[in-house]
Amino acid sequence: MTDPKQTTSGEDSLIARYFRPLATAPGAFGLVDDAAILQAGGGEIVVTTDAIVEGVHFFPDDPPDTIARKALRVNLSDLAAKGASPAGFVLTLALRTQDDDWLAPFARALGEDAGLFGCPLLGGDTVSTPGPVMISVTAFGRVAPGKMVRRSGAAPGDRIVVTGTIGDAALGLEILKGGAVATALARDAAASQMLVGRYRVPQPRNALAQAVGDHASAAMDVSDGLAGDLAKLCAASQVSAVIDAQSIPLSAPAAVLLAEGTAGIEAIVSGGDDYEILCAIPEAGFTAFAQAARLAGVAVTSIGSVISGTSVPRFLDTKGSQIALKRLSYSHF
Amino acid sequence: MTDPKQTTSGEDSLIARYFRPLATAPGAFGLVDDAAILQAGGGEIVVTTDAIVEGVHFFPDDPPDTIARKALRVNLSDLAAKGASPAGFVLTLALRTQDDDWLAPFARALGEDAGLFGCPLLGGDTVSTPGPVMISVTAFGRVAPGKMVRRSGAAPGDRIVVTGTIGDAALGLEILKGGAVATALARDAAASQMLVGRYRVPQPRNALAQAVGDHASAAMDVSDGLAGDLAKLCAASQVSAVIDAQSIPLSAPAAVLLAEGTAGIEAIVSGGDDYEILCAIPEAGFTAFAQAARLAGVAVTSIGSVISGTSVPRFLDTKGSQIALKRLSYSHF
Repeated sequence: MTDPKQTTSGEDSLIARYFRPLATAPGAFGLVDDAAILQAGGGEIVVTTDAIVEGVHFFPDDPPDTIARKALRVNLSDLAAKGASPAGFVLTLALRTQDDDWLAPFARALGEDAGLFGCPLLGGDTVSTPGPVMISVTAFGRVAPGKMVRRSGAAPGDRIVVTGTIGDAALGLEILKGGAVATALARDAAASQMLVGRYRVPQPRNALAQAVGDHASAAMDVSDGLAGDLAKLCAASQVSAVIDAQSIPLSAPAAVLLAEGTAGIEAIVSGGDDYEILCAIPEAGFTAFAQAARLAGVAVTSIGSVISGTSVPRFLDTKGSQIALKRLSYSHF
Repeated sequence: MTDPKQTTSGEDSLIARYFRPLATAPGAFGLVDDAAILQAGGGEIVVTTDAIVEGVHFFPDDPPDTIARKALRVNLSDLAAKGASPAGFVLTLALRTQDDDWLAPFARALGEDAGLFGCPLLGGDTVSTPGPVMISVTAFGRVAPGKMVRRSGAAPGDRIVVTGTIGDAALGLEILKGGAVATALARDAAASQMLVGRYRVPQPRNALAQAVGDHASAAMDVSDGLAGDLAKLCAASQVSAVIDAQSIPLSAPAAVLLAEGTAGIEAIVSGGDDYEILCAIPEAGFTAFAQAARLAGVAVTSIGSVISGTSVPRFLDTKGSQIALKRLSYSHF
């Protein structure tokens, strides 16, 4: 005779226990089906996918709640930069074991962020792995037809604008690695915590998505480093850019570390993990964009201009000399 | 001065070289943007996600082309069972190194399957991992509004139908593990190759999707084992089922292995990796469904009936006695 309990596998009960409460959208069918339904609602669906790997994108001993938030937020950041409103996400979770002490806070934080950003869990797959924990998220957003903001579209004369502050996450990573930045901030726990927090938990600028959609000629999120990502945006738009390095928005701790020489400008503009929006805003629309950003509560800063040409964007110091950057961004290979 | 070559990272050139040729849909933007556009076309988008992990779902020395096909096809199988036509997919690829000898055949086969099934690559993420290779695919399909075939919906009196043959992949896995099945088939290379092929390269039944959408009251694909998956379908439909084990369609090698006792019925009905469609077809629609299946070139077999009740589906032997199954399906945890 068959034991009825066998119909519920460990995998099923893991999903039921931790992830079904997050599947609040009708199209998720409570995660009991093989697929989910996503309504375009007359618009278009924007699809983005980003994965994070233990030991590569996060540390094995990072708190599970911050890992969950990072996994979702790196994707939300892409949606924001494309001018899309979040519609939902699917999750692939590769785990070595079913560790309830890890899963409970992971799922709780994921659910909190799903609620906070209006991006419900639609489905997923949970698999075992003998290797590092890996979390792959595919997120969906909605835009009016033809309105996704592309990387291409920036034109000479447009302002180059970034949200928030640049370089904090890279400095936070340096602290976790125990380098010179960690030593310099050994007595400033608040600054350390802020920078590490920026590395562990990105602050995607979804509040600015509508304004980006309304005003940006081109946009992307800064994930691999400002310098490299700007080069990608310029290449896609077949333009170049000049950046006033002095105007790049820095947090107070980052500004101090840069001023005292503990961190170099290269670490700040090529470090990655910023998850800010980088966009090109035509001059005529900048006032309205800046006003919309104020209303959305997102800081935006003009850092330079789009120029014609196809050379790599230049970062200029206070004397107008080009800053040499050995590497522009992070690459996995 | 900045070397312009730095704007193209190893990751970017990997994507450009191997995956851009696959991004044939206009909404993929040639993989040069952060997101893709998916058109619902007046219908609904069906979303499914399944990952495969080296050492768990495939062997490290499996040919890369079969790994690529399996990664996509396990997702195509879900779309088929939901009555959806393929619309595209995104790919997350976690690799230890950039190995061109592995990536070239992997990407080539992925592109061939994308073309074969009309399911173009829309986007993805390539990350490095110190662990096993992992491939996570999220696939999209289209259905008319409200027409996705659910697991729920099966009603007493409906026929239980499966496509193709059951158990071949599980036997193929036994061969790769070098067990009794491998010994029994040591002199029958053709049978061995067929069974191993069924494990490595699923044959998703997308040709039957329209007929499933037109006629099935409930459906899912058989991925974790017929017995366990049928139990899930019945649980979702709040019904039970009786299966005539003798009528379960077997390939010739599987039938021989079962008859000679090398393989047991349990290995066949709970082994998993079949990627056939399991569905409930109301009696009134069965003739039309069977005719549609013939036209689609997909074998379909009635193996039992839906009955009322909530007990675990029973598998009966030729004497009408219930076959004891120690486990119903594969579970990762």
